[in-house]
This record gives sequence, structure tokens and C-alpha cells, in this order.
Amino acid sequence: MAEAFLDAAIKANLEIYSKVNEGFNKNWCEEFEVGAGGDVSCGLDLIAEKIFIKYLSPFGQIESEEAGIIGEGKRKIVIDPIDGSSNAVTNFPYFGSSIAYLDEEGIMDISIVCNYANGDIFYKIKNQSLKFGNLKNLNFINETRVTNPKVGLFERSYAHPKIVKELNKKGLKYRAPGAVALSLAYAHRVKYVLYVGALRIYDVAAGLALCEDLNVTISDNYVIVTQEKEVLDTIEKIVKEVENELR
Amino acid sequence: MAEAFLDAAIKANLEIYSKVNEGFNKNWCEEFEVGAGGDVSCGLDLIAEKIFIKYLSPFGQIESEEAGIIGEGKRKIVIDPIDGSSNAVTNFPYFGSSIAYLDEEGIMDISIVCNYANGDIFYKIKNQSLKFGNLKNLNFINETRVTNPKVGLFERSYAHPKIVKELNKKGLKYRAPGAVALSLAYAHRVKYVLYVGALRIYDVAAGLALCEDLNVTISDNYVIVTQEKEVLDTIEKIVKEVENELR
Repeated sequence: MAEAFLDAAIKANLEIYSKVNEGFNKNWCEEFEVGAGGDVSCGLDLIAEKIFIKYLSPFGQIESEEAGIIGEGKRKIVIDPIDGSSNAVTNFPYFGSSIAYLDEEGIMDISIVCNYANGDIFYKIKNQSLKFGNLKNLNFINETRVTNPKVGLFERSYAHPKIVKELNKKGLKYRAPGAVALSLAYAHRVKYVLYVGALRIYDVAAGLALCEDLNVTISDNYVIVTQEKEVLDTIEKIVKEVENELR
Repeated sequence: MAEAFLDAAIKANLEIYSKVNEGFNKNWCEEFEVGAGGDVSCGLDLIAEKIFIKYLSPFGQIESEEAGIIGEGKRKIVIDPIDGSSNAVTNFPYFGSSIAYLDEEGIMDISIVCNYANGDIFYKIKNQSLKFGNLKNLNFINETRVTNPKVGLFERSYAHPKIVKELNKKGLKYRAPGAVALSLAYAHRVKYVLYVGALRIYDVAAGLALCEDLNVTISDNYVIVTQEKEVLDTIEKIVKEVENELR
């Protein structure tokens, strides 16, 4: 079952990736609808969602950021058809998709995150190690940790100047590339991943599952993932203090 | 001459791009040397520089961030072999190179910026329009502006919390992907590009030349590029006020 689902998900990703490449500089990305998650959907979101439904609906009930609940089934599939929509709309090369396939008890079975800007794809099957590959050749290898990475990823940093200030004091440099699931997928290569803001299941379910072997803290209002526990503690202290201050 | 130079530069970029793809997950990126620009060079920087020297030295004297001045010639070629080194070291997919080819009077003749994470390549020949293509097929088209982009690019945002705060008040969202020349190359797709910090010619010469038709302000300590003059004025006011405050 896991193999068949993974295979279908990769096929869907390949089809979307090819659309992205042929559609580049076409106008598929005019905004015309608001999705179930409250985000502004663009053409690519809807195209990607349609493709995912085509390939994945035989495996369970799909819950998508754009269309809400689709179909029926004992098992649930949570997808974000386009993670990083604002980037996709402007052809800024950091956007992708995430898929979380739950078992009948609602426990994560398979997670897949794909980067449509360059074809990078990550997946994790329950109790197996995290795999990394590219849609161009589908040769998957174990994703390994980068030792002593210099930078972290801080999504939505623009809305949190006080946290920026405190991270800077501690020398915790960041990138803020603009697609949460993707950034979680790259967590093994960076010092930390920090997301501050309201959490939506679509955004983080699959990405977080890829980080199972890292240090992870989740609250209503933030997610922190790090390689080193000490870094997590430092960042969580900062986020909590700033939150208290703002209250 | 322009055609021959462009051809050589594209060949160099193709060779580096292929190294990046084969070298992915190899250990070419152990740090082992400090470049002329003060940055920590990594293996890929040096490999890329060597390849650029091989292809471009017949065309003039090369000035590179890593090795300093190389060879002789009436014309100068300013290169940044790897723009976004910290990203490259950790395999975070936003890094590239920039090449600026000056004429005998030191005026920009050809500028080329390439993204090694996905093969995107931009170039501009003096008095001609900006071209965009990909190393995968080398089909170049005119780069067009994205209308009403929602986000800007703010490089080194991590070091400037007060600017982050003021941008946030004005609703000027940003990404901070971590490679300056690349971000300047994508300027036509975003609301603004802002870089705050000491300016080095390697980082910005080629990138800025690609933005000739946009609104550009350069000072010792910042660069702002926008589609709309009003956005530039707003951002410059913020940056200046924060600078004055900190003095």
C-alpha cells in the first residue's frame, strides 16, 4: 500500500513539475479564487490540486487547503497543493507541495514534500529513514545532516521584528525563503527552522513528519526544529519572551 | 565580441552547474580558505572560480572575490564565482554566480547572473533588453515584469531588526533567500530588492546592471531596487531614519 501511494504521489508531482516548467511565464497564475485555508489561490494551486485528486483519491479522503474535503475513505490524505503560493505567483524559485498520508487511526504513514523550483523531493515512510531525491532522475538516497550549518530558516520573519532582534543578538542568522513545508524538508541542512504564526495543518503536517529525528517543539503559535537541543532551547526562550512582552 | 564572451560565460556556467549536480551530497564544500573579499570560501567557490578563469581569461583581466586579480587585459571581468556561499555549503537551493564584463572605459558591457539551484540564467548586453532562460535548454526570452507582486527580497534582514519593524508597519513583506546577485536578478518579479550592509563590487555589479530599467538607489551602505518609485522612496526613508537613529 505504501509503495503504491508513494508511486502515485510521485507521478502527480512529476505532472505538476512538468506543468510548472512548461507554464513558466504563462499566465496560469492570475489570482481568481480564495481557498478553504483563507489563502488567495492562484491558477497553479488549482491545477496542482486537480492533479493530486486524480492520482490520490483512490487511496482515501483528501483534505486540501484549496478545496476542503474531497471524496471518501477510511484514510485521510492532507495536501497543500502549492506551498509558497506568493512565490509561485511571481515565479520566485522556492515553492512546492506537501502530502501527508494518514493511517486509519490518523497516524502519519507517508509524508512527501516536493520543490517545484528545482525538482527536489523528500519522503518518509513510517519507521523508515528520510529519503531525498530529484524528480529529474528519481534516484533516492538517505538525507544526511549537514554538520555545523551557519544559517537557519525563519519563515514569516517579516512579521516578527522583535524575534529578529533577539536572534541577531545570539548570532542566529537566517534565511526567509517563503514556503513552510519546503523549509521543514530542508531542516537537516540548516541550524534551525522557525515558523511563527497561526498553524494550519496543511502547512506543517507533512513537513514536520520529515523532521521526526530532529528536535521539534510545536505550540499553537510556533514551530521550532533544530539539530541541536541547545539551539532549540535558545530559540524557544526568545519566542516565548517576545510573546509575553507583546501580551 | 559580446557574442563570444556570452558564449564562453554560458559554457562556464554549464560546466559549474553540472559539477553542482554531480557534486550534490559530495563533500566538495568543506571550508578551507578565506577569499580576497573576506568571505569564507568553500570547495565549490574554488572549483567555480577555476572554471570561470579557464573560459573567461582570454577576454580580459579577471577580478574575483576569491583569488583577487587574475591575468591581464585592457578589459576587466568582475566575477563572484559563488553568490550565496553559505547556502551552497548546506545545499540550500538558492545560490549562483555573477559575471560583469566591462569595456575599456570601465563601463558595463555584459552582465550574467546564474542560479545553480535550478539553472535559471539572466543576462543583459548594453543597450539591449534583459534576457531570461535556463541552462537546461538555453531558450532565452525577454524577462518581463510581474505586476503587483506581493513580496520583496530583503537580503541580510537578520542583521536589521529595526528595518524589519518599519517594513512590517508598511506591509512590505519580504523573503530573505541569501544570495544578493541572484535576488537582484529576480528584481522584475518582486515588489522590491533591499540589501543593507557594506557593499562589495563582486556582490552587486552584475546584478545591478540587470536592473537598469527599474528604480535603483545605491549608497555606501545599502541598495534598493523597485518597480515603483513610490516604494523606493518609502523604503529609502525607512533605511535612512533607522541609520540616523543608530548613529
